Amino acid sequence: MARWEPDARGRLQQAAMDLFQERGYADVTVAEIADRAGLTKRTFFNHFADKREVFFANAQSFEENVLACLADADPALDAIGAAVDALTRAGRELAPYYEFAKGRLAVLAVTPELRERDLIKSARLTAAMTEALGRRGVAERTAAFAAQAALAVFTVAAADWIADPAADLPALMQRALSQLREAVT
Amino acid sequence: MARWEPDARGRLQQAAMDLFQERGYADVTVAEIADRAGLTKRTFFNHFADKREVFFANAQSFEENVLACLADADPALDAIGAAVDALTRAGRELAPYYEFAKGRLAVLAVTPELRERDLIKSARLTAAMTEALGRRGVAERTAAFAAQAALAVFTVAAADWIADPAADLPALMQRALSQLREAVT
Repeated sequence: MARWEPDARGRLQQAAMDLFQERGYADVTVAEIADRAGLTKRTFFNHFADKREVFFANAQSFEENVLACLADADPALDAIGAAVDALTRAGRELAPYYEFAKGRLAVLAVTPELRERDLIKSARLTAAMTEALGRRGVAERTAAFAAQAALAVFTVAAADWIADPAADLPALMQRALSQLREAVT
Repeated sequence: MARWEPDARGRLQQAAMDLFQERGYADVTVAEIADRAGLTKRTFFNHFADKREVFFANAQSFEENVLACLADADPALDAIGAAVDALTRAGRELAPYYEFAKGRLAVLAVTPELRERDLIKSARLTAAMTEALGRRGVAERTAAFAAQAALAVFTVAAADWIADPAADLPALMQRALSQLREAVT
């Protein structure tokens, strides 16, 4: 697995996630994050609008990756196939950020405020994926169910990957998809 | 279908929904809601903590109904069957509130602030249903997928019912469940 060589932005994100885990999201200041990263507050604000954005900046680029993958997914794939394929490909690009992703999930689990924001981001991604599937000619209802199911599968598979980084994300995605199918049929 | 004979609480809710649709959620005050219902602000605050609670008070009792239905669902039903059955039975009790439910959905569609809050309530209901299925002996992952799928089915079927109140909710639930199954297999 490629090692992540963090630049200033990456150092700020890792410092923030470490501090959030040590002391709780609410109690950590931007000054402390910059200090831990060996950078200034000014540098922090060159990269992020606020403390919350440190947490969600990668989610934004993940969404863009998913939509790009969906736009060029194999036309032969059906809706659920295309959605799962796009999330798998975008998800694999997260591999170098394993430590960040692990910290992020741990902070999310104990911070309702961030979990609420994360739900809203997920709903936005679901809506964007539904629209993208619509552009592939998928009926709206099928597209909405496929996008929701694929994201539910990804949430489970990503947690599995964080629990066992040696595991193969595409295999975890397929296993979670099978489990979802069994659960609904 | 039974007519809803609104008490003070119901009159406040219907007045609020009418005003929200006419003028937008953000611009309506508690004083205006009370006035439209022919009641005082004091009566309003006897029933609701604030303007937002008018919108979500029924969601709270819906959640309680769903969990009660799930607790006494036929033990022979599997996870998805029990979850869909519980949402169908709780959903049928909403029939007398058709006008309120229709207004609510229309306001939700144009009010991101309420939609975000609604997402959070849905996530809470999903988590509570997952736990309730766990108490029936369902494995956690199956329970989580079944609860999410059943709620996605209910969201679609409820919108179908609002579009056509003469339709039968249990039949709409079964149709939406078939559509979800087709979308994921």
